[in-house]
Amino acid sequence: MTLDPRGDLVALFRAVVDIESVSGNERELADQIERALRDSAHLEVLRDGDTVIARTQLGRAERVVVAGHLDTVPVAGNLPSRVEGELIYGRGTCDMKGGVAVMLACAVALREPSSDLTWIFYDHEEVESAANSLTRIAATRPELLAGDFAVLMEPSNARIEGGCQGTLRFTVTTTGRAAHSARAWMGHNAIHDAADVLDRLRNHQPEQPEVDGLRYHEGLNAVAIEGGIAGNVIPDRCTIAINYRFAPHRSVEEAKQYCRTVLDGYELTFTDAAAGARPGLDRPPAAAFLAAVGGEPSAKFGWTDVARFSALGVPAVNFGPGNPEKAHADDEFCPVADLFTCRDAMLRWLG
Amino acid sequence: MTLDPRGDLVALFRAVVDIESVSGNERELADQIERALRDSAHLEVLRDGDTVIARTQLGRAERVVVAGHLDTVPVAGNLPSRVEGELIYGRGTCDMKGGVAVMLACAVALREPSSDLTWIFYDHEEVESAANSLTRIAATRPELLAGDFAVLMEPSNARIEGGCQGTLRFTVTTTGRAAHSARAWMGHNAIHDAADVLDRLRNHQPEQPEVDGLRYHEGLNAVAIEGGIAGNVIPDRCTIAINYRFAPHRSVEEAKQYCRTVLDGYELTFTDAAAGARPGLDRPPAAAFLAAVGGEPSAKFGWTDVARFSALGVPAVNFGPGNPEKAHADDEFCPVADLFTCRDAMLRWLG
Repeated sequence: MTLDPRGDLVALFRAVVDIESVSGNERELADQIERALRDSAHLEVLRDGDTVIARTQLGRAERVVVAGHLDTVPVAGNLPSRVEGELIYGRGTCDMKGGVAVMLACAVALREPSSDLTWIFYDHEEVESAANSLTRIAATRPELLAGDFAVLMEPSNARIEGGCQGTLRFTVTTTGRAAHSARAWMGHNAIHDAADVLDRLRNHQPEQPEVDGLRYHEGLNAVAIEGGIAGNVIPDRCTIAINYRFAPHRSVEEAKQYCRTVLDGYELTFTDAAAGARPGLDRPPAAAFLAAVGGEPSAKFGWTDVARFSALGVPAVNFGPGNPEKAHADDEFCPVADLFTCRDAMLRWLG
Repeated sequence: MTLDPRGDLVALFRAVVDIESVSGNERELADQIERALRDSAHLEVLRDGDTVIARTQLGRAERVVVAGHLDTVPVAGNLPSRVEGELIYGRGTCDMKGGVAVMLACAVALREPSSDLTWIFYDHEEVESAANSLTRIAATRPELLAGDFAVLMEPSNARIEGGCQGTLRFTVTTTGRAAHSARAWMGHNAIHDAADVLDRLRNHQPEQPEVDGLRYHEGLNAVAIEGGIAGNVIPDRCTIAINYRFAPHRSVEEAKQYCRTVLDGYELTFTDAAAGARPGLDRPPAAAFLAAVGGEPSAKFGWTDVARFSALGVPAVNFGPGNPEKAHADDEFCPVADLFTCRDAMLRWLG
């Protein structure tokens, strides 16, 4: 199976889907993409591990970065792809081989783009952040990610989803005093004390702030709880794991402070944090992009790699085929129309 | 090492302690006890697995059953026994080889008891109830357990602790709807819902009823809680395990109904139940026992095998050397004085 970026877009998409590339197994797909791009004279093609980067060097005033990951979550009997009416089903159809196919087609087609372009096909996105090749490249060759504006072709129903919310994880542990449950009054029940923490979370009204014109929707939720020693012992510890999804007007530090206020009186142990990204739709390249795509942009709730670009000072948005709520679903699919909508918008914008 | 029930009580006690008999390994101790009892002409000695039963058949009007278990929880570097002043330390010193030593000494000494006597040295008490040899014997040879009054020589500070509280275990599960935590409003958080259950337990005032003249102290406690799918998912289930310790004026069914009232609106899944035992201090043999022991009897909070006798229609009390709060502790010990107090009281009562 070889990839033909100049041929039929649906055939290209299905070929990309049918090269299985679960995280850690991206090599074959990366090889095929590298081969498909190498014969375009207008592109400089670089390889870094299983990441393929192709870019123009036309001396344009601005550079746009377009990125998409090659890997998928594990296959669940949903390969090879299959067509049902106007939908194409299979692992990766939604997250995010539609974006990869559109990128391939546009990279080859846009020989004289209005901005210089950097196309990044990267590996290990669906795993821990440390393994994500963008983490490595940002550390070792940050110049490869540089640009004035970035588009992550993650599924967004072929509409612009600006920025992304940040995410913070922490634990709260209540402590008591163990005792035999037949003499409970000699101990202090730490699980009972967790009621106050859960009450505060239950009664908390998540904010829905507007940031750069987009409406975000925060969430502060217990995602795990664990406590108990034995069936006859008053528990002396109860640990609640909490996830705060915060709009991108807050920094990670401000998000932490917000949680400290909601849970005043408790010690918060932070275990994981990722900053959000402002939508950046006020930047110059964004205006032309909005005009090319049309429609109303909306806020991105889930965290995506746009935040990496944002952290590097590159405003970034999500724009790609497929419904993000179908990402990772066993019945994930992509509407054929989304592929053409996205391709045509990119060609209009950058052509 | 052989056991000499006619010799020094402290030496006998230490010899019993130093024959390691963690649950499942009671054979050596049972063999030694059987051998020590077989040369007493006034005793009929029976063996059932690793349980040794010795009894008189004197045609007395009443029969008193005295029982104690041979097994201990696992050794924790606390064998062999050691003496510190008036205390003897080591695994089993508190729970309950002091009682076993007193039983051995009394069984041999009481050749002409005022009541017929049944001495039961049994195995597998410190494990699940199904493995307890009293469960087997009650089912296969209940006549061996028959009597008018029973004394369990479990640690009770050498004072009478009447009856025992019952215990009930159940779970309550709250259910919600899973969703990505970046879009929490599309789900429903089951862990947050657990707050109401924990609030009710936290605000519940345990009763302290008087039963047959003794003051009990109930307890209704969460002993475990568990919920959560992943750090980025709104949890759809949270399960709370609850332990109700109830005074013996309630049956198991009444105890269940009580919990259903406290947690009205939730489904309770009962996983374990053991009836309590009324103290039975109004029965005829108890009066003489109270007089022989002296002091004020108190209620037993923890569940013990007195409940098995109670279920067979035999009122039963706890009376033995050692502080029950030291049972299973790595630094468990027995005051030497308790051994003599208990032995002398038994001889006074039954002699």
